[in-house]
Amino acid sequence: MNGAIIAICLTLLPVLIAAENPCCSMPCQNMGVCMREGDSYSCDCTRTGYYGQNCDIPEFWTSIKVALKPSKKTTHHLLTNYKWLWNIVNRIPFLSKFIMRAVYKIRSATVDSPPMYHTGHDYTSWDTYADRSYYTRALPPVPPGCPTPMGTAGRKELPSPQYIAETFLARRRFIPDKRRTNVLFNFMAQHFTHQFFKTDFKKGAGRTWGDHGVDLSHIYGETVERQHQLRSFTDGKLKFQRVEGEVYPPSLADAPVHMIYPPYVPEGKRFAIGHEFFGLLPGLFVYSTVWLREHNRVCDVMKELHPDWDDERLFQTARLILTGETINIIINEYVQHLSGYNFDLFWDPELLFSDQFQYQNRIFVEFNHLYHWHPLMPDQFHINGSTYGMKDYLFNTDLVFKHGFGTTVDAMSRQIAGQIGPKNIGPVNLKVAVETIKHERNLRMQGLNQYRKRFGIPPYKTFLELTGGDAEMADQLEEAYGDVDAVELYVGLMVEQPAPGSVTSETIIEMGGPFSVKGLLSNPLCSPQWWKPSTFGGEAGFRMVKTATLKDLFCRNTAGPCGLVSFAVPEDVQPTGLPEEQDASSQGKGASQNDADLVPVNGVLSSQDKHLHKEEKTSQDGSQDPETSSKVTANEKPVAKNEKLPKNGVAQKKEFQNGSPKNGRASKNDVPKNEPAPKNGLPTAFPKNGAAPRTYVNRTSCKQCDRIEL
Amino acid sequence: MNGAIIAICLTLLPVLIAAENPCCSMPCQNMGVCMREGDSYSCDCTRTGYYGQNCDIPEFWTSIKVALKPSKKTTHHLLTNYKWLWNIVNRIPFLSKFIMRAVYKIRSATVDSPPMYHTGHDYTSWDTYADRSYYTRALPPVPPGCPTPMGTAGRKELPSPQYIAETFLARRRFIPDKRRTNVLFNFMAQHFTHQFFKTDFKKGAGRTWGDHGVDLSHIYGETVERQHQLRSFTDGKLKFQRVEGEVYPPSLADAPVHMIYPPYVPEGKRFAIGHEFFGLLPGLFVYSTVWLREHNRVCDVMKELHPDWDDERLFQTARLILTGETINIIINEYVQHLSGYNFDLFWDPELLFSDQFQYQNRIFVEFNHLYHWHPLMPDQFHINGSTYGMKDYLFNTDLVFKHGFGTTVDAMSRQIAGQIGPKNIGPVNLKVAVETIKHERNLRMQGLNQYRKRFGIPPYKTFLELTGGDAEMADQLEEAYGDVDAVELYVGLMVEQPAPGSVTSETIIEMGGPFSVKGLLSNPLCSPQWWKPSTFGGEAGFRMVKTATLKDLFCRNTAGPCGLVSFAVPEDVQPTGLPEEQDASSQGKGASQNDADLVPVNGVLSSQDKHLHKEEKTSQDGSQDPETSSKVTANEKPVAKNEKLPKNGVAQKKEFQNGSPKNGRASKNDVPKNEPAPKNGLPTAFPKNGAAPRTYVNRTSCKQCDRIEL
Repeated sequence: MNGAIIAICLTLLPVLIAAENPCCSMPCQNMGVCMREGDSYSCDCTRTGYYGQNCDIPEFWTSIKVALKPSKKTTHHLLTNYKWLWNIVNRIPFLSKFIMRAVYKIRSATVDSPPMYHTGHDYTSWDTYADRSYYTRALPPVPPGCPTPMGTAGRKELPSPQYIAETFLARRRFIPDKRRTNVLFNFMAQHFTHQFFKTDFKKGAGRTWGDHGVDLSHIYGETVERQHQLRSFTDGKLKFQRVEGEVYPPSLADAPVHMIYPPYVPEGKRFAIGHEFFGLLPGLFVYSTVWLREHNRVCDVMKELHPDWDDERLFQTARLILTGETINIIINEYVQHLSGYNFDLFWDPELLFSDQFQYQNRIFVEFNHLYHWHPLMPDQFHINGSTYGMKDYLFNTDLVFKHGFGTTVDAMSRQIAGQIGPKNIGPVNLKVAVETIKHERNLRMQGLNQYRKRFGIPPYKTFLELTGGDAEMADQLEEAYGDVDAVELYVGLMVEQPAPGSVTSETIIEMGGPFSVKGLLSNPLCSPQWWKPSTFGGEAGFRMVKTATLKDLFCRNTAGPCGLVSFAVPEDVQPTGLPEEQDASSQGKGASQNDADLVPVNGVLSSQDKHLHKEEKTSQDGSQDPETSSKVTANEKPVAKNEKLPKNGVAQKKEFQNGSPKNGRASKNDVPKNEPAPKNGLPTAFPKNGAAPRTYVNRTSCKQCDRIEL
Repeated sequence: MNGAIIAICLTLLPVLIAAENPCCSMPCQNMGVCMREGDSYSCDCTRTGYYGQNCDIPEFWTSIKVALKPSKKTTHHLLTNYKWLWNIVNRIPFLSKFIMRAVYKIRSATVDSPPMYHTGHDYTSWDTYADRSYYTRALPPVPPGCPTPMGTAGRKELPSPQYIAETFLARRRFIPDKRRTNVLFNFMAQHFTHQFFKTDFKKGAGRTWGDHGVDLSHIYGETVERQHQLRSFTDGKLKFQRVEGEVYPPSLADAPVHMIYPPYVPEGKRFAIGHEFFGLLPGLFVYSTVWLREHNRVCDVMKELHPDWDDERLFQTARLILTGETINIIINEYVQHLSGYNFDLFWDPELLFSDQFQYQNRIFVEFNHLYHWHPLMPDQFHINGSTYGMKDYLFNTDLVFKHGFGTTVDAMSRQIAGQIGPKNIGPVNLKVAVETIKHERNLRMQGLNQYRKRFGIPPYKTFLELTGGDAEMADQLEEAYGDVDAVELYVGLMVEQPAPGSVTSETIIEMGGPFSVKGLLSNPLCSPQWWKPSTFGGEAGFRMVKTATLKDLFCRNTAGPCGLVSFAVPEDVQPTGLPEEQDASSQGKGASQNDADLVPVNGVLSSQDKHLHKEEKTSQDGSQDPETSSKVTANEKPVAKNEKLPKNGVAQKKEFQNGSPKNGRASKNDVPKNEPAPKNGLPTAFPKNGAAPRTYVNRTSCKQCDRIEL
């Protein structure tokens, strides 16, 4: 009997020892590093501002700082309210710069640079710095062999990713974004972020084939070989083809690069683009097209200014100008819309020149996961009265040609996107959500609450707090996870409600803000060495970078009058894409139901106002802008067009005559949902059933899709 | 007639226009960027501190700064003299830290980070930042199509590289270094720098297959694949083999990696080392061996402290510790010796934490060229009474086994190296000099004087000033270049005399200092994120990093008593390797001729003193050092040895009984130059004639040698 007990004990002993890694309970606070020391542990509190066994006792100056610092919630409240105050602040340059600099500094200080952890090791190693094929991470993984997947909190076994995704994330009914975020924003997000979110699934969920930043590799290709295939080697320009007089990406026959297309897409309809999966969706094709046109337009301007420059220099300088334009648009308009701040964000690299700031960037796996904004994606697309289900949209660039480029952009600006929140991921993308949960488990990523602490926000105390008051979902989450500290990062981010006034939740803002600011401002363009006119071919190029707007980008590169171009549906424009019953109910009423549902929040139109304000300052009339006016007169090709910019959304709508609804409100007749999808050249090989064509986006069955990241 | 004139004019016109690139005359001063504008130019003076057409008018604060700043010459004079003053400064921590921080800041501020130029483009391009396969450069190239190779200065055609090398660089008679720099230093330089000087000759002289910094890839391999071949995957250790009881790198059969060996080296004598050409010279083999032993020793220490760690974590942590040890030894001892400063240099990353400093590094092509210190290399090697000509030394690791590891290190410490200066490159390396000149011309590198201005030192006004008073060489240089502004960088660096008190010339110090400080301090180890105990496996590892010395490195890893270990031959030790007539003349005299020739400068012994001082502070007795003492008791293998350190060079010499000369002075008998080279296992395929075996180092005839960089 005794022998049996001893035998059992001996059998259990290594298990007990193995299970007793004291770092499993995440004892070290405030970013202290936990090191196991036999049965005990120590926390390395160096430079955390705290001391004590668990780095939880603040040093003197830390306690002062903590006492004085407003909470993230307070700051967010301040920034998204008191519009009258911000209207004043926005007009006082020194105040405005002071605040902008503070935002840059506070946001970027949260990101380790150089990174401390990557997905290849649980601890800091040389490869963390040197091996760029790994995503970096903001928190090390849960130690191996802990009692529960989240360390010590929560259930020993979590429900299947499929169950989690279907219960908490799957769309029952399209929920439109309350801040009127539109499809043009949705595709900007997808197009922009896929230059650096490039998971190398063949190697693993923690690996990347990208280069960790805003490098415009989605336009120019990840490798020099691909870039060379895409270039014409004449006047710096990219290859293109004309379709009905307008410039589009070249055919694959003209620029033989690797692109992912399903077999049914005919050769002539396969396009060569910087990123191999940007043939997937017409929205991505639209952005690829407009940046191609912009590149070639900039080359024309540079060629006129520098007749002695060769193709290579024209190309390289245009690339730098487009990189700058991208950053400017992203900060001024895209992040501005996302944040919902009444403070006007702007891009001024000089604000950081006197500070300790690292001009190097890495993409964090957490940044990738938090950017899985698939709820934005609608299930149907509305263009000029036609409605396309997802199955008719995928790989179907024909509809851009059918409706025309300008009309497509206008339609994207009018269609509302989905709200980033629970139960709003459409059927096509749910598989991605399932995979993301699997990846997080595979990478042993810490839970939502650990990340909240890491990024300076208090962890949720209850499930009800996490769901923003949704008791049913709170109960389901509790059943699934057992402890609010055990809720997985991605799941937590998706079930949170958007923060007041914002497009995304508090955690997405507080985690994404730092990654985003750091990524944009650490671009070499922003360094004191590079940020000067000569980098951009002189003052004219520098001005293009500093004055770029989304509207200019599209309107200068669209033949014919320019339609609505915006990241949100303006308040006086009736959005398309609202759920049918809302849409139907709006028929009988003067003020539509959706107007009540969509909060007329700050910033939707102010973003337009801001551009106009800036344009007035820099080039009230397009023809005063020397580089663009020279372009208009010098370039015989009608590719680029410098329109006088309409003063507001209404004017835009009135001026735009290319088949858009006349009164700004979509009617049942305008959006013929019940009509069969138009015959637009799709071959019969395309799946006929209503299910999303997973064949082409399912990684397990698509041989070419190892690199697809939706 | 008129028609003929017009025809001639028309023919010449494009030539005239092409020749008139106004940037050829390098009009922009103070790092302003020259941009051609038709027949004219503009200078981008942004953030140069200057303005005006040529960025030559100082802004107010610049003129104040310039007026107050001492010249580089004055600073150098101060640092290399007034030993009494520095003895005081060195003992006052706050003063000493203040100066060290100033050195870090001033030196690193001169290096563009991120870089502005690389060898792929004449201007800033995205690839300058993103394509790490290019070396970066501190100055853009001379514009293409200029009247002369250097722009507008000097002759239209320069003499052949062969002529230049033979006239100004070829060794007539070995010139020993006056600061008693020895062969152990020489091979440290070669071993250390080849982890980041890795020209990819297949792609071109401006390309690199390295990763731009101190990454210990020369120990662990450039790729993960190579690293894995070199690892034992047990307890973190590297593979090794025992030869006569001592640990050496494994055989190629055991670790099949690509190594460059000539066909005559038998399989059993081919070793697997991190860098593929480190089988070339026994000096490199010695360093490869000692770092391998150190790695495995550190693994033993870590294993005892962290019994729960797996092989991977032990390996990765040991690698970080060795990286730290390397940086510490390089700053504390190697750079200290090079500089000749009486100020004690030290490594303290924390001094930069409050400053704008970039933790990223790139290798500049100019850094590579200025580090071509082939004059250091003697033509013969003296080990324990035997003399080996270069032909018996190349690829001959046998002599390390024959004489024993400790004896070889002792001999390297006793043999004087060549002076870095004109006419001192031995016949084996002259071809490298010829190639370097070709590469500079190929890369259109600007001349010595432009680089002097770039790095804040006044350009030479005359050839006589450049040669330090050597009228004959000045005349020859004038004949070759026509204008002192046309002297090529590498040639200029090599014909300068060493600066007073230093091993290298003023320009090498003022250019190399910034590249070196920046490269060492920008290592991620030095970042606030990484510089903490947990990065190095806890306090014990952190202490190893902070207290590493060259002497410890060798003595802890040498079986038996430790000989002389130093970067310079101590003043009370008679150097070996002096020219024969000096050596002969020293026979008849009490005080040898070479003692008069070798200036007893500051720093040679003070470097030893410094170590002792530091050792006294940190571990007066080796056994007080917990991680090393635990090693000694815990590790049953006699690989690592922690010796009580002898207090000075004399004591070292006395304690060392392993066959070294008994009285510290080499005699003709001790160094049997006239004996045939000892039969040490070289097969008969080895070339018999006295010429250097160029077959194996000549890139044009050696198929494997594309990556060899001597």
